[in-house]
Order: sequence, then structure tokens, then C-alpha cells
Amino acid sequence: MAKPLIGAIEAGGTKFVLALMDEAGRIVAEQRIATLTAAETMPEVIRFFSEAPSGHGELAAIGVASFGPLDIDPASPTYGTITTTPKPGWSGASFIDWLRPLGVPLKVDTDVNGAALGEALSGAGKGCRTLAYTTVGTGIGTGVVRDLRPMAGFSHYESGHIPVAHDRARDPFDGLCPYHGDCLEGLAAGPAIRARFGDSLDAMADPAPAVALISGYLADLATNLVLLHAPDRLVFGGGVMKAPGLIPALRRETARRLAGYVAHLHDDPELEHYIVSPGLGDEAGITGAAELARQAIAQRDAAA
Amino acid sequence: MAKPLIGAIEAGGTKFVLALMDEAGRIVAEQRIATLTAAETMPEVIRFFSEAPSGHGELAAIGVASFGPLDIDPASPTYGTITTTPKPGWSGASFIDWLRPLGVPLKVDTDVNGAALGEALSGAGKGCRTLAYTTVGTGIGTGVVRDLRPMAGFSHYESGHIPVAHDRARDPFDGLCPYHGDCLEGLAAGPAIRARFGDSLDAMADPAPAVALISGYLADLATNLVLLHAPDRLVFGGGVMKAPGLIPALRRETARRLAGYVAHLHDDPELEHYIVSPGLGDEAGITGAAELARQAIAQRDAAA
Repeated sequence: MAKPLIGAIEAGGTKFVLALMDEAGRIVAEQRIATLTAAETMPEVIRFFSEAPSGHGELAAIGVASFGPLDIDPASPTYGTITTTPKPGWSGASFIDWLRPLGVPLKVDTDVNGAALGEALSGAGKGCRTLAYTTVGTGIGTGVVRDLRPMAGFSHYESGHIPVAHDRARDPFDGLCPYHGDCLEGLAAGPAIRARFGDSLDAMADPAPAVALISGYLADLATNLVLLHAPDRLVFGGGVMKAPGLIPALRRETARRLAGYVAHLHDDPELEHYIVSPGLGDEAGITGAAELARQAIAQRDAAA
Repeated sequence: MAKPLIGAIEAGGTKFVLALMDEAGRIVAEQRIATLTAAETMPEVIRFFSEAPSGHGELAAIGVASFGPLDIDPASPTYGTITTTPKPGWSGASFIDWLRPLGVPLKVDTDVNGAALGEALSGAGKGCRTLAYTTVGTGIGTGVVRDLRPMAGFSHYESGHIPVAHDRARDPFDGLCPYHGDCLEGLAAGPAIRARFGDSLDAMADPAPAVALISGYLADLATNLVLLHAPDRLVFGGGVMKAPGLIPALRRETARRLAGYVAHLHDDPELEHYIVSPGLGDEAGITGAAELARQAIAQRDAAA
């Protein structure tokens, strides 16, 4: 029998990362392709997974970690379908329908759930039973993983849109969210920072005032995550979080909000081991996608 | 073989409800006892479960839904132990240690997780895969149940202490929480309402201004629950929620905060079927405790 190979897709807004791994997780083949429309991009994806296994083994499953919004309920008739997106040619696109001809088990989840799964498996959240991974970039999103399973309710979580304490005397900016104006994403994502301060945090001559403001909004999310999910660790990644001083400021602001209520998050005032940067960098998403593929195989075998 | 009987304990701050049920859930014996110290109350509990089964069958398991804070991690060496509480004689009290001599499987969770489980099983959340049950009384707490399992991270959730948007111009009250001052519980629980308005919501001559204010704080929680747990339904119970007009105001305030972002929570501007009152009233806790007992039996059998 040919060696089983794991397929992984990280479907991003600007590029797709395609990877083929052996059972030990070593990459056998990898390709990056631009995200065009589904009708243009998905045939390239099919071609990769049809041709790349040749000589290495046999494709056994594919996991997909994709931009959304996305139907991630395996019991839903539209599982694996991108619902409504402004991205041309992707509304209603179904990863399941596109990939079905490959004849292998498939599992689809969001990009942030994939990254959370990757970090929990082998990154900064390794060993955590409950891990919350938040990305702060063009948008803000959080994936929560429990026992290496991404959590969800009627849909994936939408942490970017939580209400935060917006003191307009201190920060008169109205916010950029087309739905809420000054929700978390409207005030603290990359575009909102540039709209107020004219630059990204890491490019400012004196980022201190902006870091103080943005860390407070992000701490409202961190505090809500602690109180509503009680994760063993919070990972904060994405472009905005690379700004010097932002993670330490987020720790201080979160400790201030918790105010000693959660005993073990009080001893270390900067929460150094609790709020951390990603361990896998840009590899979190594809690592999580590969784990989704392994879970798809395990589920197929359990059902057999 | 004697008929198996299900034991259920709802351990409240002022009273314990003890129940013995047959396999169909019919109550065979029930007793209420005052909550004194553990050393006074627990022997009464043991006596009930030792004597009440006589002539009806044989005790098969006990489920406990208790006030907290409580260690609810079955893998912890202090599982089922009340951690630190101002309640005299209960800090460090272990339900497991007290009940072990009865020789039956035990399962312990918080009162609000028990009520959430009861409502999900046969109350207002029946049929929901993910149900969030919030109680608003002397304190505020939320239990989230997924597939009839209470969810938790490193500990049970603590929704009462989330930060909320506190506009001091509109509401100059400092809040009553000894940790945070103006967290949700500090501003919106029963004692905070009486401290500001001199009375409970349902006893005020004109409750409208207070209802408008309190519903806004509770809507901050409801919105966070929607975005961070995506429950199929939100149940809001407890003494404060019985005030006329509060549930409809909470629906309106939550719809205003979501602002159409979650498509299916937009069609009905008052979210009539999404934010609801409990279906089991005061029976939710004991119903959930009995289900915990049934789950303890199922886990014992699965491990055998």
C-alpha cells in the first residue's frame, strides 16, 4: 500500500498555501497560489493535490483552514461553504464540492480556528487543554480550542465585534466597523489604527500613546475570554501584535481589569506565561489544517 | 435487583434541595434543609440518601449542583471541593469526600451549570445544541451547555465579572463589586439595583429608567455570549429577570448592539425566540443535578 499523505490548505484572502505532508508531518510538497476567484483558484488546488503525491505516496485526507464567513457545521447541508463575502467569486463557494472529486475525507474550519489548532498542537499553546488564539490584523478574530477540537456554537466565534469600553473623551474616533462603528475591530484592528494615527504601530515615531489605547481595547477581549472561556493560555498574533510593547501593555491592562479576581492570574502582574505571542509564526494555519486532515481520517475510521 | 434510583442535590447558599428520583425522573422522595456549615449540613444529606431509598429501590448515583467557587475538573485531586468562600464552614469542603461513603458514582458542577443543563434537557433550551443560561440575582453567572455537557476551561465561567460600558455621566454609581467596582455584577445584580434605586425593579413605582439602564449592561453580556459562544438560545433567569419589561428591553438592547451583524438574529428585532425566560422555574437546578447523576452512571459504565 502506498504511504498515506496528509493534504493541507490554508485559504487566505490574498494567497492559498497548499501542502502535502508525510505521516511524520514533514512537508513533501508545497505551493503558494494567488487567491483569485473560486473558479480560477480551486482548479489549481485540485491540480496540486492530484499531481503532487506522485512518487511520494497516496493522498489520504485534506484539511482546510479558510477565510470566512464559513459554514463549519459538519451536520449542515452547506458544510464547508463560504457564505457571503465581498471577495469576488467566493460567495457560496463550497470547499467540499470542489474537493469531493479527490475522493478523500475532508474537514473545513476557519483560518483562525486552524491557527488556534496549530498553536495548541505544537506552538505556544502546546499542552493546554483550552487555548484561545486571537489574531489582530486587518480584522480581529479568535479561535478557541478545547482538547484539540475547535469550539463553535451555531457558527464560528466572532470576537472582533464585541462591544468595548469606548471613552470618546480620550478617543473621539468613531470606529471603522460598517456594522457597529466602535466595536473592538472598529477601534483596534490595523485599519482603525492607521486611520487615527496615520501609520501602523510599529512604524510610529512614538507608539506609546497608541499602544496604551489599543492595548486597553484588546484587554477588554482578553478579560472576556478569561471570564467566558477560562482558557489555559491566550495567544495573540497577527500583524498588529508585532508592535514592540503591545503584548506587555496587553498583559498589564488585562491584569488591571481582572483585578485579582482570578487568583492564579494575579501573582504575575504582567501575565508573562498566560498572554503570549504565537510559537509557529506563519506556520500555525497550515499546521492546523494538516491536523484537521488527520482528524478527518480518525473520524472516518471511527465511523467505519 | 433493586430498582436504580437517581440522587440529586441542589446546594444553595441558604438551602439544600435533596431529591431521589426513579428512572423515569419521577420524584420518590424530596427534602429541603437549611444551609448551615458543611459539618452540620452534610450529615443530614448523608442521612437522607441512606434512608430515603428504602422500599423504593437502590441509590445508583448522585449529582450535585452547588454554589461556588468550586473545583469542577474531574481530573483534579480536589474535584468537587468548594475553594474559598466567605460562607462559614464551607471553604475546602469536598462533596466527593462527604458523599464517598455512599459508594455510588458522583458528579459535581456549579449551580448555574446545573440549571443550564436542566434547561437544555427539558426547559426553555430543549433541543438546543448550545445553550447559555444566565442567572441575575444577588450575583450574576452563566453556564454554557454544549450537547448536554456543561462547558468549562481551567475553571467554571465567571460571566458576572466581565467589563461593561459604564457611562458615568448617565450612571454615576461606582458599582458594588469588591474586586472591580463597576463590572457587570457590580452594576446590574440585585444589590446594585437596590443601592442606586432604593428598591428592586419589580417593586419600583416607575421602573422604566432602571430597566433601561440595567438591560443595557445585561445586553453587553448577551452580545459577548453571542459573539464568543454562538449559543442557539440565551435563557435569562433569576430574581432580577422577573421584573416586568426587563426581558423585552434586553432583547432590544442586544439587537441594537449586534446591529444586524448576525443575520438570523436580525429578522426579529426583539429576538423573541432567542432571549427567553427559564422554562423550569425553580426546578432547573435539581433537574440538572439529576442529569449529572445519570451522566456519572454513563461514564462509569463506559469506563467499565
